[in-house]
Amino acid sequence: MNIAVVTPGGDAPGVNAAIRAVVRSAASQGFEVFGVERGYMGLIENAFRKLSPRDVSGIINLGGSVLKSSRCELFKTPEGLEKAAENLKAMNVDWLVAIGGDGSLKGAKEVSEVSGIPVAVMAASIDNDIAGVDETIGFDTAVNTAVEAIDKIRDTAVTFERVFIVEVMGRQRGFLAIDVALASGAEIALIPEHPVTHEDVSQRLLKMGSLGKKSSIIVKAEGAMGDPFETASRLSRLTGYDFRVTVLGHIQRGGVPSARSRTLACLFGNHAVRLISEGKKNRLVGLRDNRVVDISILDSYTSVKKIDENKYRLVSLLAV
Amino acid sequence: MNIAVVTPGGDAPGVNAAIRAVVRSAASQGFEVFGVERGYMGLIENAFRKLSPRDVSGIINLGGSVLKSSRCELFKTPEGLEKAAENLKAMNVDWLVAIGGDGSLKGAKEVSEVSGIPVAVMAASIDNDIAGVDETIGFDTAVNTAVEAIDKIRDTAVTFERVFIVEVMGRQRGFLAIDVALASGAEIALIPEHPVTHEDVSQRLLKMGSLGKKSSIIVKAEGAMGDPFETASRLSRLTGYDFRVTVLGHIQRGGVPSARSRTLACLFGNHAVRLISEGKKNRLVGLRDNRVVDISILDSYTSVKKIDENKYRLVSLLAV
Amino acid sequence: MNIAVVTPGGDAPGVNAAIRAVVRSAASQGFEVFGVERGYMGLIENAFRKLSPRDVSGIINLGGSVLKSSRCELFKTPEGLEKAAENLKAMNVDWLVAIGGDGSLKGAKEVSEVSGIPVAVMAASIDNDIAGVDETIGFDTAVNTAVEAIDKIRDTAVTFERVFIVEVMGRQRGFLAIDVALASGAEIALIPEHPVTHEDVSQRLLKMGSLGKKSSIIVKAEGAMGDPFETASRLSRLTGYDFRVTVLGHIQRGGVPSARSRTLACLFGNHAVRLISEGKKNRLVGLRDNRVVDISILDSYTSVKKIDENKYRLVSLLAV
Amino acid sequence: MNIAVVTPGGDAPGVNAAIRAVVRSAASQGFEVFGVERGYMGLIENAFRKLSPRDVSGIINLGGSVLKSSRCELFKTPEGLEKAAENLKAMNVDWLVAIGGDGSLKGAKEVSEVSGIPVAVMAASIDNDIAGVDETIGFDTAVNTAVEAIDKIRDTAVTFERVFIVEVMGRQRGFLAIDVALASGAEIALIPEHPVTHEDVSQRLLKMGSLGKKSSIIVKAEGAMGDPFETASRLSRLTGYDFRVTVLGHIQRGGVPSARSRTLACLFGNHAVRLISEGKKNRLVGLRDNRVVDISILDSYTSVKKIDENKYRLVSLLAV
Repeated sequence: MNIAVVTPGGDAPGVNAAIRAVVRSAASQGFEVFGVERGYMGLIENAFRKLSPRDVSGIINLGGSVLKSSRCELFKTPEGLEKAAENLKAMNVDWLVAIGGDGSLKGAKEVSEVSGIPVAVMAASIDNDIAGVDETIGFDTAVNTAVEAIDKIRDTAVTFERVFIVEVMGRQRGFLAIDVALASGAEIALIPEHPVTHEDVSQRLLKMGSLGKKSSIIVKAEGAMGDPFETASRLSRLTGYDFRVTVLGHIQRGGVPSARSRTLACLFGNHAVRLISEGKKNRLVGLRDNRVVDISILDSYTSVKKIDENKYRLVSLLAV
Repeated sequence: MNIAVVTPGGDAPGVNAAIRAVVRSAASQGFEVFGVERGYMGLIENAFRKLSPRDVSGIINLGGSVLKSSRCELFKTPEGLEKAAENLKAMNVDWLVAIGGDGSLKGAKEVSEVSGIPVAVMAASIDNDIAGVDETIGFDTAVNTAVEAIDKIRDTAVTFERVFIVEVMGRQRGFLAIDVALASGAEIALIPEHPVTHEDVSQRLLKMGSLGKKSSIIVKAEGAMGDPFETASRLSRLTGYDFRVTVLGHIQRGGVPSARSRTLACLFGNHAVRLISEGKKNRLVGLRDNRVVDISILDSYTSVKKIDENKYRLVSLLAV
Repeated sequence: MNIAVVTPGGDAPGVNAAIRAVVRSAASQGFEVFGVERGYMGLIENAFRKLSPRDVSGIINLGGSVLKSSRCELFKTPEGLEKAAENLKAMNVDWLVAIGGDGSLKGAKEVSEVSGIPVAVMAASIDNDIAGVDETIGFDTAVNTAVEAIDKIRDTAVTFERVFIVEVMGRQRGFLAIDVALASGAEIALIPEHPVTHEDVSQRLLKMGSLGKKSSIIVKAEGAMGDPFETASRLSRLTGYDFRVTVLGHIQRGGVPSARSRTLACLFGNHAVRLISEGKKNRLVGLRDNRVVDISILDSYTSVKKIDENKYRLVSLLAV
Repeated sequence: MNIAVVTPGGDAPGVNAAIRAVVRSAASQGFEVFGVERGYMGLIENAFRKLSPRDVSGIINLGGSVLKSSRCELFKTPEGLEKAAENLKAMNVDWLVAIGGDGSLKGAKEVSEVSGIPVAVMAASIDNDIAGVDETIGFDTAVNTAVEAIDKIRDTAVTFERVFIVEVMGRQRGFLAIDVALASGAEIALIPEHPVTHEDVSQRLLKMGSLGKKSSIIVKAEGAMGDPFETASRLSRLTGYDFRVTVLGHIQRGGVPSARSRTLACLFGNHAVRLISEGKKNRLVGLRDNRVVDISILDSYTSVKKIDENKYRLVSLLAV
């Protein structure tokens, strides 16, 4: 059995641990593994290399992807998919394992349809927005990275009695923002799912000020309330408080994976190889109800994951 | 409603976040909170102090417990329990919230029986060995601390081609050791639940050596295989390899809590106050199937939690 | 002897360690210490509080300043200075110790002139731009914070074969940028002291690309080359490479101080108290030639510190 | 010009950054570099491999040594040295660059004497005990690692009101212990250079107890006062306090190098290549008076470095 592993979502810490888990689990079943370089681009460009258990030594704690990744527009075209299918068949690939988020899922589904080669997708994304699974590889690391950054920012916020807007990733969804806000003890979480007005936010800040809170942290998902500097400027006018903005940016996508991100990667990778042994095709592997599960790729792809309203409410409730 | 909060298990990172969550959730319900100092000792010594939402400001990211803790032998005697019950009644305490592990659970159960005052216990322990719950406050931090230490140790293990035995906490149980071994990419996990002989271990090391592994990490729970230095010495004789030992010790009990430990603390603390609002007595709050649940203290106390055999097997399988 | 300690530069990690060192060194000499709250504002607002050795317990590893800080425009006026001098005299303050950078130095000099009260200034600044001293409290921590952030960013830069512009603090000077660039292995350092054109930078990137470098990190001081997003856009047009920008921002000003920042704080604080014992007035305490020294505040204030040209050159030389 | 680079002291964080600096500085001069594997063992076993600037890409932030290391008894014999000299000549090596501490220095001196090939040694050691230089590569990282561990330990020390003995590396010398004690705010430093009795230590602990200090940290160098568990037991009998012991062990030798350790590595590596360009033979490169200097290997080897008595005194003075 020949397995090709590809990391189109190479920017979630734990992807390397996931590659290692696939390669070594496959070896224990006597399967061969080929790594595909630069994400789906490598399928088109025929960039395969054999991966032995020794080749993935010492990578469990590295951020990024040793297979590299890329955004690949060509792969979204019929020609690109056709070429990828051709190359997979020429390499005698029996299964394709993709590690990534929504984009990886879509690509895997399509190349499978075109090539007839079954796929297994391991949920890896710092956004944690994949429907049907509670948690993805990399999310825990990104939350910790942002929380550690806010711990530092709070030092200066408290010392200078300022309000900070800290923008975390999340153009469409607020999963990261909610968890970061709760764990950092932020006063306010701004997420795309719950639009609020500048007046709402300034009222809450003024109320906290009247209770003696002299500094606050607002965790804002990218997709909430527009430009953070503009938001700060309007809120400053409304409240009279001194605002600062920090956009955390790409530090959230890299770094040494947390223990949990590595553990999920180990479990998901092993489960993906079990799916191959059992011939269970086109499944997404993720964590649900604290168990490693596999669900239909199609089901995940056509659904929308809901935020945890309780957690969202708790941010404000605990920030009194 | 008057709530007393006590931290007999003050050595799990996230306990302060849990205190904060109880105090502020209680405030949102109009309840008063008293902090008890030095664990159950403070109940006997009448060491209560009022905690307002502002008093727990800036503690979400502190290790240890701002209420302090202690081992209290007196509390295990009828006289001690009687005195504690007396003090709780004199303070008009309606509910006692304890944050800790098995010892805290036992104490809470007993003081409740003697005093008639209902209790809620929030599961907090780096050992993660509380029956009925999947995860406790502090466990994730301890796993990360040990994994980060092993990342450092592996640098020197690989450079000098040595075998390291790294002892992690766990006199009776191997939950911590298994998760640490899996996430650190350790070659072998030694846990009390699965006794192995020195010959077994040396055979595995020699087999890995023959596959080209020149350095290895053995994660050993305290309660497995006896003294680590003696173990190293015997394994060295059997394999001819160069061994080193590191006992991680108390660094596992402190430190800035991870995002996950803080999040669990927020959720558990809020849930504990909900139990009080609803009059649901003598429950243990923890995470199960990725949901915050409450279970009967008695049920937890009389059961034994099983290790995850799949994770345990995976350590060896991924260390080829 | 009554000493007042003030932290107008409260945003350099290690300031709390410096307060502790002053308070405890003073205690060993039998001196009294008053903390001034909110920087020079507290002098005007008469916000003094007594600090005993026990009051500074547990603060050595905290970022920010427990005395808080503020930008105080009023202090720059004759009225403000007059009021501050009045309050200092009313409190019978014999010496003022200020912990901070250039602004603190200026303020200390002025209040001393107006009040006749001698001052000692401890060099603390993440910018490390104080003339006459090699290193300030907080600089080492800020360098480490930025380098750790770039370690994370490089994961995604390498994986996606991108160029990152990482903006670090430094509106006027490039000390931080140079050290960060060298220690992070960045390919290019852009500093205010050495203006370069977009064409220069793009030529260097293209040359590195031709040598096989597929990703690069450019560390840019705030004051170099203007807006980082505009810079990225122009460089992208000139090179055809994929650019991303991260502005590190205020995380550089907070956080747990590094060992070195704490050590300098201990040494400087003790030295400042020695100056008081010896009656050596109006001196700046800092590190020079790896020794704790004191220099004339006036000399420092009227000089400009030079960057280390060798380090600057080394960034490019080692990034081949 | 052919340069061989060897890392007999491969257990100081920053050694890889030093290798990178040598290789790339050499390339800028048109020199060739060969890496020697496994320390001096590789000289005897003829384990050379060519290192190009691209080969040392991405290693600046890795602990350990990519060239590996070993303790090599054979190298201490005339036969071993003779064989090493032979191999160096057969490879047409013109200069040998060794990165390490006292043992590396001795070996470099001897192989140079036997072979006639000049050497340059870059001071790298977590012990920082090399005479003639103020600071070595790796020392700053080890201090930070130990201080971060003690920050965690203090959480539990304070919470449970205990005394902790934390043993850091240093069989002969107390440089690491002093810096760790000062930066961690430890109450007592025990170093080989200043023997004290158990009675002295217990008197100091009791005196601090009487001033209200309920928990303490004692930082003990390995070579001071013998076995830490025995020491704890005796001090516990003398004081009545509750003691715990943590032996930090090998975590101090690995880990991601701090910014400062990397910066020193860059500077030293570049300086070593400059020595080669200038034909300045048999020098040790290190930091002195905050400048990169080179001194006679023989001078360093025959001298003993003194501890900083002021720092040592300051530990106690600031721990009131």
